[in-house]
Formats: sequence, structure tokens, C-alpha cells
Amino acid sequence: GGFQEMLCIFGTGDLGRSLGQRLFQTGYKVVYGSRRPHSCGPLPPGTQAMSHVAAAQSARLVFVCIHRENYNFLETLAPQLKGKVLVDVSNNLKKNMYPEANAEYLQRLIPGAQVVKGFNTLSAWALQNGPSDASRQVYVCGNSLEAKQAVIEVATKLGFTVLDRGSLTAARELEDFPLQLFPEWRLPLQLATGLTAFFFFYLLIRDVIYSYVVNDKDISFRIMASLANKVFPIVSLIMLSLCYLPGVIAAFLQLYRGTKYKRFPDWLDRWMLCRKQLGLVALALASLHVLYTLIIPIRYYVRYRLAAHTISQIKENKTSPFDTTMAWRTDSYYVIGILGFGLYLLLGITSLPSVSNVLSWREFSFIQSKLGYLTLFFCTFHTYLYGWDKFLQPSSYKWFMLPGYMLSLVVPSVVLVLKLLLLLPCVDSTLTRIRQGWERTDPEQERKKLLLT
Amino acid sequence: GGFQEMLCIFGTGDLGRSLGQRLFQTGYKVVYGSRRPHSCGPLPPGTQAMSHVAAAQSARLVFVCIHRENYNFLETLAPQLKGKVLVDVSNNLKKNMYPEANAEYLQRLIPGAQVVKGFNTLSAWALQNGPSDASRQVYVCGNSLEAKQAVIEVATKLGFTVLDRGSLTAARELEDFPLQLFPEWRLPLQLATGLTAFFFFYLLIRDVIYSYVVNDKDISFRIMASLANKVFPIVSLIMLSLCYLPGVIAAFLQLYRGTKYKRFPDWLDRWMLCRKQLGLVALALASLHVLYTLIIPIRYYVRYRLAAHTISQIKENKTSPFDTTMAWRTDSYYVIGILGFGLYLLLGITSLPSVSNVLSWREFSFIQSKLGYLTLFFCTFHTYLYGWDKFLQPSSYKWFMLPGYMLSLVVPSVVLVLKLLLLLPCVDSTLTRIRQGWERTDPEQERKKLLLT
Amino acid sequence: GGFQEMLCIFGTGDLGRSLGQRLFQTGYKVVYGSRRPHSCGPLPPGTQAMSHVAAAQSARLVFVCIHRENYNFLETLAPQLKGKVLVDVSNNLKKNMYPEANAEYLQRLIPGAQVVKGFNTLSAWALQNGPSDASRQVYVCGNSLEAKQAVIEVATKLGFTVLDRGSLTAARELEDFPLQLFPEWRLPLQLATGLTAFFFFYLLIRDVIYSYVVNDKDISFRIMASLANKVFPIVSLIMLSLCYLPGVIAAFLQLYRGTKYKRFPDWLDRWMLCRKQLGLVALALASLHVLYTLIIPIRYYVRYRLAAHTISQIKENKTSPFDTTMAWRTDSYYVIGILGFGLYLLLGITSLPSVSNVLSWREFSFIQSKLGYLTLFFCTFHTYLYGWDKFLQPSSYKWFMLPGYMLSLVVPSVVLVLKLLLLLPCVDSTLTRIRQGWERTDPEQERKKLLLT
Repeated sequence: GGFQEMLCIFGTGDLGRSLGQRLFQTGYKVVYGSRRPHSCGPLPPGTQAMSHVAAAQSARLVFVCIHRENYNFLETLAPQLKGKVLVDVSNNLKKNMYPEANAEYLQRLIPGAQVVKGFNTLSAWALQNGPSDASRQVYVCGNSLEAKQAVIEVATKLGFTVLDRGSLTAARELEDFPLQLFPEWRLPLQLATGLTAFFFFYLLIRDVIYSYVVNDKDISFRIMASLANKVFPIVSLIMLSLCYLPGVIAAFLQLYRGTKYKRFPDWLDRWMLCRKQLGLVALALASLHVLYTLIIPIRYYVRYRLAAHTISQIKENKTSPFDTTMAWRTDSYYVIGILGFGLYLLLGITSLPSVSNVLSWREFSFIQSKLGYLTLFFCTFHTYLYGWDKFLQPSSYKWFMLPGYMLSLVVPSVVLVLKLLLLLPCVDSTLTRIRQGWERTDPEQERKKLLLT
Repeated sequence: GGFQEMLCIFGTGDLGRSLGQRLFQTGYKVVYGSRRPHSCGPLPPGTQAMSHVAAAQSARLVFVCIHRENYNFLETLAPQLKGKVLVDVSNNLKKNMYPEANAEYLQRLIPGAQVVKGFNTLSAWALQNGPSDASRQVYVCGNSLEAKQAVIEVATKLGFTVLDRGSLTAARELEDFPLQLFPEWRLPLQLATGLTAFFFFYLLIRDVIYSYVVNDKDISFRIMASLANKVFPIVSLIMLSLCYLPGVIAAFLQLYRGTKYKRFPDWLDRWMLCRKQLGLVALALASLHVLYTLIIPIRYYVRYRLAAHTISQIKENKTSPFDTTMAWRTDSYYVIGILGFGLYLLLGITSLPSVSNVLSWREFSFIQSKLGYLTLFFCTFHTYLYGWDKFLQPSSYKWFMLPGYMLSLVVPSVVLVLKLLLLLPCVDSTLTRIRQGWERTDPEQERKKLLLT
Repeated sequence: GGFQEMLCIFGTGDLGRSLGQRLFQTGYKVVYGSRRPHSCGPLPPGTQAMSHVAAAQSARLVFVCIHRENYNFLETLAPQLKGKVLVDVSNNLKKNMYPEANAEYLQRLIPGAQVVKGFNTLSAWALQNGPSDASRQVYVCGNSLEAKQAVIEVATKLGFTVLDRGSLTAARELEDFPLQLFPEWRLPLQLATGLTAFFFFYLLIRDVIYSYVVNDKDISFRIMASLANKVFPIVSLIMLSLCYLPGVIAAFLQLYRGTKYKRFPDWLDRWMLCRKQLGLVALALASLHVLYTLIIPIRYYVRYRLAAHTISQIKENKTSPFDTTMAWRTDSYYVIGILGFGLYLLLGITSLPSVSNVLSWREFSFIQSKLGYLTLFFCTFHTYLYGWDKFLQPSSYKWFMLPGYMLSLVVPSVVLVLKLLLLLPCVDSTLTRIRQGWERTDPEQERKKLLLT
């Protein structure tokens, strides 16, 4: 085949070897440049190692798979590397370790070469096994169009989709990509931690400390399970409603502005972008709530209390009659909770990348919007059923502190009411028209525009 | 790079901007045609906006990213668009909104252009972020082979896999794709709804209304949880067995016909195609059954009954002895149920697209067939254990109505018996030969064939 | 389009038809070679059938989609197939059915043709629907570079990523790929089965048989649920710790050797490669443990015992006081278990291919390493809490057999202690330097090296 171009790789580490193996399997000839060409360990079959000088001369394209700390020795190869395309695939261990990006440093060391940054977001594993779903994208940047084009060609033959990020000044950004640790999860996790801490101390005071101070009863053992089983559902419900609040705010903003062409404020954009993460953290907390609830009957405390109740009934020779309302109420409370959790799980499953990929856009939005609001409704209703008639009992208000679940109902109730307003036919039709591109013409503004053009 | 072809995009909406950004990042030059080139909002970096006339003249390929409602103004551009390739990426909000497909309408408006329908199944999001697993396929259709070829080339460079659907008459079909809402889920969901409704009313009459009429006892509170926890497992088991029934029918049909080259009847083909969805709906119902079962001990009604039982034992000074058979029976019943549900979950997990993709065909069929029948066996056996000796008790037959679980056992038992027949060595070997292409020669038919040729 | 090359397919079975349909949709002309060109059943639209001779003459590339058993008739076509590229896509039903690979057999039959093995790892379904995430890779091998290149070109146009495995001698390996049934799961599943069997009989003797022999009490009904609910968590914990043991061993090996460039022993490599499977089997067992635990309160045996306890308390007129320590202890035990299981589920979800693909390498290693050890810690701690003060009670040691949970604590405790040692700053920094490529120079070895060079 006329396809057998020779490519050079500097460095025989994991990354270099994986890259070489993949290049060879795609049909390239591969030569390694190594300090110790005869003792550099096992190389992929079909490839060979030479000295750096010999290797550099044999190919037009050189992949630099060595640590930045060892770049300085490349300066000695400047004559051989003149005019070559150098692909810098390096990453750093931390952000801002060096004043300039690795690729810019390499370009400064060997000004005669054409440095292209690229492939650094891939792991050795991804390189060896070829592109999979999410590791299909490869970013490149560089100052020479021809050099970039040559690299893009190789990447495309390897099966990757290439995104050109412009000149070499973008190298720092590319080098920071692999160092990110769940950037989009930070805010939701911080929020979850904050809310959990707040409600934990709130309920600690309201339940445990109040009981200790006022009733002189030590119920501190309740911290472990009972308290957590109040905090988790509360935070989960609030976070679920915070998933849907920004969409409602955005709709009202579009209605108020009469156009969809004005950008949303930054905070709203950022909020919208982390809705999925908010929802998944809320789902995790809801799952904990389910498990905490299901172990209730095997807890020592619960078994003791039930037995004590039975014993006291016998001793006092009183039998409480069966309360049908109570049966309806608790069963409804549990059932609505189960159905809400079931829907919630469905939302979680459809947000798995491979599942959401299979859905058409219309299907995805049906699930995440229609089923999403239904989930919020079920979970809110579940909480109202938990409250039942306790809303009116003054005994619930210890030390003027509302019970936790009442606090948790504020945001979801607001979201559901606002959503109901948006579903009113007159509001809905206006919003649909705005989202299709229609703009409310403000007579005054129109006049100004005419004057300007 | 010699790669920098100029492409034109009409329309600066979400879709137009996403498409332009992706085209630019892949290496194309991009120019927008806009009614207001100076105030059309933020465009992707590297692209520019011009008047429609200027933009159309600068490129051979024009992406039409505007709503069909605004197509009529394109008629004025007919001279500039003569000989150009127009890519119609539009979709409608509903099926059958217009008598002809958008692309055909566009072709009629500008007969001198070569209209290609395509890209419309992608969302703006998919366009912006490049192809992912399921959004890799792009459909195109059009009357000009050259025009289609040019579009296919662009799509391939963007990383998509192109499927050519023929001439422009296929445009309507392509425009209907994104409007489908879970077409393959419709039948299974309707079936689940129908069966659930039937068994709900059946058990309502048999349990609640019977008890009210005959025993004058109001146990209507049982509707909420107890009744649902009978209906869900019944429907789930029936639907699970309906997953495996068509495979068994197909095998017997092949055995009867003695060939695999005759097509199955349409209803069987349709049934086979929705087996996965049948199974997943059944799994959802089984999961609800598990949750409903696990909340049993925290239900008020159950706690009340247990306490009442203990109290009555003391008052009557009777202690029921420990019944080892009962312990074996209930434990087996629960354990078989857990194992069946565990296998069921495994089937569900392996039907996730990303998991089934990783499996070889042999592994997938091992899980879905061998483990599938095992799951059906466990779940059926779990139901038989539930029945135990109640099959023989006449008290179970209220108003001549069989208990619900007995009805649910009919289809799975039939499926399992038929499957056992298929596993008999003589039947199995014949079926294997047929599936490898062997045909049973019918002497009479053979003679007819000879006469005809 | 100048793209419309003619390709030939021998065989009109499922695979042939799927391949033909896909080739046609990608833009190729397709002709089938068939024994009965006029009655070979429905072909994909746009394709046609001819006699084998006519079909072979019309194309340079012939896909052989027929069973090996029917290859011999191809010998008669040798003159027409001379110089053609024959793509052998066949598979066998079992390993080692024939002395030579199908492709080598084909080459021997028609020495004048250039045989390329390929596409055989794809199912008809994958061929028809185009490449998806995992079925994107296609393996080819063959003796002629030109022939392979022609096949690679077609595969690339179909959207597949091609891996060249060298000459035709690799055909046997390629033909064995689709016959593998979960090769990487074999070891973990065997281990799980072995451990489960061992602990089952161990606990059977220690609990059931001991009680029968010593106390003359038949508690055999406990086998079904209680015993299994001891065996599953024990095996799960041991297997979870076996996930992390090889990593710890590897680290100590690197510390001892002072370099990362020496290969690990084979057994360690193999162990490291099945860590994911070990973990997932352990997660499945842990999930069973959760379900077995949650059904405890609805088991007849448990309800009977609780009622009997209440009744005996009343009859003896004794009320046991509420034991706060007991409440703390059991609640902690359950809560730590829930949190451990929650983390465990998180590990399982992130090991789904589509989720791990979305993660950067740093994110993946954070979850699988940091969260992994945290999970191991929680699960181990959960087991210690289960033991509580029973470690010191001589009554736990029946027939000199330790309780099962004590045995299960050995490996995880060792792993956690070793991991703690690795986290000591001095050890950690040395290991980090070794993993970055630093080598401890052994003065003696250095001298030897100098002598050799």
C-alpha cells in the first residue's frame, strides 16, 4: 500500500508505546527515538528503535512523548528537527506548574520546527484501543496550518474526530483539560454539602437538643439513622426542585423580554448547565433515603418501641381500634414515594450517556421535562402527605422552629405553581411563539432602530 | 491547508450557529447569509455574516437553516442559487403539517438548485459537539447524485456515518424521524396499561368488593398498596413470558415449514422487534413489586395486624408452635424471588446500549436467551411457591374467580413447556440444521419446480 | 458520483444481505453471486443477483459470505477469481473444528486469488445498522498488502476503524474472537463460585450441623435465607479486597525493584486485568446481601421469634430496659453498610462503558482508586461493627471454627494496612518518583552496564 508513511515517536513510555502500536496497526511505519535504543524495553511488534538523531531524520512528523522536564535535551537536536512537525502530547501533573505551556516551551526551544499541540486529552489506554464513544474527540492547536493539517490527517486515520482550537496560544487550555476533576459537579456537590450541613444542625437542635433540654431525654442515638433519614430527603427534594427552577426563570425572562435572542444572565446560564448534575446528586440522596427507610423495621430502636407498645396495650388492657384513615394515609404516603422514586430512577437511567444518545431530541426532552415535572410533583406530594395535618398542630413548632420537611416544601411548591402558570394556554402560546423566533415589537425601540439604519 | 473550502449557511439560529462552529472547527471556511448581517447576534468565532446574495455567491454548498415558514423569500434568490447545492436541514413541529415535504417545497421554489435533504435528525447540540455513539448516523436524500456526493463528503469530514435514502421523495420520511416519540415502546406500554387495568378491576371485584358484599367488611384501604402489589407482579410475569413466546413460536414455525427462508408473518416480526421493550417494561413493574414488598413491614396495617395477633395469642393463652415447613416455604419463596429479580436486573443492565455493544454476539445471545429463560423459570417458580397448596383449596375460588396469580401462571407455563420441547435432542438438532440453511425437501414441490424451470 | 465502485457478494444469507444493504447505502454498487439467482429470496433494494461466474467477473473485490462447508464448490470458479480480492467473513460454530483456518483453506482452494480475512467479528445486525460504539473495530489480516488496503478502504467508508493483524496466519485467531464467551469473567466467576461453596459448607457445619449435633435442634430451614445472607457478604468483601490487593502488591514490587520498567510477573498482570470483573461480581453479591437483609422483617421465622419474645416478656412480667449502646451500635452498623453499598453502586455505575468513557483519566482513577479504597474501608468497618465484642467471646468459637465474618476480615484488613503504609509521605514520594520514570541506581548494576557497553 502506498499508505505506509513513516512516523517518528520520541519516548518509549506507556504513551509512546500505545501510540506506536495504534499507528502501526492503522498502517503507518513507526520508528522510536530513544536514548538507549538497544535496551528501551519491549516495543510494540513491527516497530523499531533508533537514536534520536536517526529517528528524527527518517520522518517528517515527530510525536514528542516525553516529560517536559526532559525537553531541554531536545535543543541539541534542533538541526535535525528543523522543518519537522513536532506533536506535543504532554500533560502536567498540576495546573500552573510552569509559566508557559509545554508546547510553547517546546516551540521556543526549537524555533525551526512547527509545533502542534494535540492528543494530550487521550490516555495511553484510549490510544492503544482506538477511539470509543467519548474519547473520539481530539483537540489540536498550532501556528502552522500545514503542520496542523498533517496531524489532523493522522488523527482522522486513527479514527478520531479532530477539533481545531486555533493557534499555539490555546495550548495551555488544552493542557489543562486532563487536569480537571469533575468541574461541572463542583457546584452541585458544594450545594448538597451546604444544605446537608445546615439541615443536620437545624434538626439536631430541633429534635435531639430540644428533647435533651426540655424533656431531659437523651435521644442522641437518633443522629445515626433517624436524623440522616430526615436530612437526605429534605436536601434531595430541594435539589430536585432547583433542577427545574432555572428553566422556569428562563421562561419568565423570555416572556418579560418578548424575545429569545437576548442572552440570559451568566448566573442563569451556569445554573442551567449543571441541572443534570443537580438532579443526579439529588437522586443519590433519594436512594439513600429509600435504603434508610427500608431498614427501619430491622433497627433495634424500632423493634423495641413496637414491642413496648404491644406490651403496654396488654398491661393496660386497651386495644386501639383499627384506623382506616390512618391505613389510607400511610399507604398513600409510601406509594406516592415509591412511584416518585421510580420515575426519578427512570430520569437517572435516561441521563446515562449511552441511553440519552439513543433517544431523539424530542424523546429526551419529553422524559426530562414532562416526566421530570411529574417526578417533582410526586415527591412534593409525598412530602405533603408526610405532613398531613401536622401543619396545623402547634406542637410541631418547637422553639419556633418549623419541622424540616416544611422548609423543604417551599422551593418545590413555588416551582410547581410557576410551572402551572406557564401551562396556562395564553402564556404557553406566547412562549411557544417566542421560542420559534417571534419577537414582541416595542414601538419605541423600532423607531430608534429605523433612525440608526 | 488546501482543505479550506467555503461553505454558506442561511440562518443564524441555534442550528445554524452550531453547524457553523462545527464546520469551522473541522477546517471549512464558513459564511452566514442573514437578513441583518450586522445585528444577527453572536456568531461562532472565525465565521462572518453577509447578505444572503453575497453569501450565496461565495459558496457552492448552502445549508438552509431557516424555518419552512420563511422559505418563500428564498424565491427572490433563485438567480444566485442556480446550480448550487441546497441542503435542507429543516424539521416540522408536527407530522403532516404541510402537503409536501419541506425539501420538495424548497426544490419547487428554486428549481435551478440541487436540493439535498439531510442532517435534520441531529440536534443543535449534536452538531456542536460532534458525533457521539448514536448520533453518528446522518440520513441524506436527493435527486442529484453529484449534489448528494458533495454533502456526503462534508458529513464524513464532520465525522458522521452517512446513509443514502435515495431520491428526494424520501424527504418526508426523513422529516418524520425526529417527530417520533418512542414508536417501539407504544405497543408494550399499551399492553402493560391494558393488563394492569384488567387485573386491577378483576382483583378489585374479587378481593375488595367480594369482602364488602359477602363479609360486609370495608377493606378498601388495601387498594393503595396490597392490590397494586398483586397487579404489578402479575402483569410483569405475563409480559416477561410474552418476551419469550414469539421466539418459541418462530422456532415451531421453522420446524413446521422445514426452512428458515420463508418470511415470518408480519405480526410475529413486529412482536419480535419489541421484545426488548416488553422486557424492560416488565422489569420496571417487577422493581415496583420489590419496593412494594419491602415496605410491607412499615405499613400501619401490617404492624397493627401483627400486634393484634400477638395480643390475641396472649389473651387466649395459646402459643402456636414453630412451623418448620412454613419457614422453609416462605424463605424459599422470597429467595427464589430475589434470585429471579437479580437475574432480571442483569438482563436489564446488559440491554443498556453501551453494555450490549461491548458484548460479542455470542455473549449477548447467551445472556438474553439462556439467562432469560432462567429468569422466566425463577419468576414462574416464585409464583408457584406463592400459591403452594392454595391451588387445591376451594376457598380460593371466590365468586368462581381464580386468584390473580393463577391466571398469571398460564402464559409462562406454556412458554416453559414449549421451550422444554425445543430442547429435546431430536427437535434441537433439526432446528439447528434448519437455522444453518438446511431445507426439508418436499418431494412433490421439487417435482413442480423441475417442471417450471 | 465517481464513487460507485461495484462490489460482489457470494451468498445471500443474513450476513450477505446485511452487508450488501450497508454497502449500497454507503454508495457502492452491489451484485450477489447465487446458485439460484432468480429464487434467492428478498435482496436489499438496489442490489441484484447473478450467477457466481457473472458476479465474480463484474467486481475486483468479492465478499465470501457462505459457510466453510460449501467452500469446495468455489474451486470451480478458480479461473474467474484469479487476481481478485476475496474477503473471507466466515466463522465457525466451535473452536478447532478444522485443522486450518477458514481463510487459509480458501486461499489453498484458490491460490490465484488474494484472500483477506476480515469483518467476521461483526454480526449481521452490526453490519446492517452501521458501526456503534464497540462494534466499530474491524480486524483484517492477509498476505497481500494491496488486497488488504482495498478492504481497509471499504471498511473505512462503511465507518469502521480497521486494525491490521498482519499476515493470513492470524486468521485462526480472528476466527476465534467471536467464539469467546466472557473470557475475562471466567476467573472472577470461578473464584466467586469456589469461595461461595467453601463458606457455604463451612457455615453449614458451624451453624446448622453443630446445632443439630450439640443442641439437638433442627434449624436446617436457615439454609435458605440466613446462611446465604452470611455467605454472600463474606465472599463479596473478600472479592472486593482482592480488587485492590494486586495494585498494592504492584506498588510494593515497584518500591522493591526501584524501577517501573521491569515487567510484572504474569500472574500479577492477569490479576490486574480482571479487577473490574472481580469488583462487579462482588457488587452483585453485595446487592443480593442487601435484598436478603431487607426481607428479614417479612420472614415467618423472624416474625415468629419477635412475637415469641414479646409474649415471653409479658408472661415472665419482665421488661428489658432500652439499651442506648445497642441502639447506637446497630444503627451505626446498618448506616455504615448503606453508605458502603452506596459508594459501591457508584463504582459500578462509573464502570459502565458509556460513563467511564465520559470521564477523563484523572476522574476515572479518582473514583476507582480513592472512592474504591473508601468503599473497602466502609465495608470492612461494617463487618467489624457486626462483630463488635463477639471477637472476645469464647462462645463464638464452636468446634474451634471461627465465625465466617472473622475469616472474611483477614484479606481486607491486610489490604487496608498495606495501603496505609503506601500513603506514608516518605513511601508515597518515592513511589511517585518511580512512576514518573525515576530509577534507583544500583551501583553494582551500573558498573556492569558500563562494562557491557
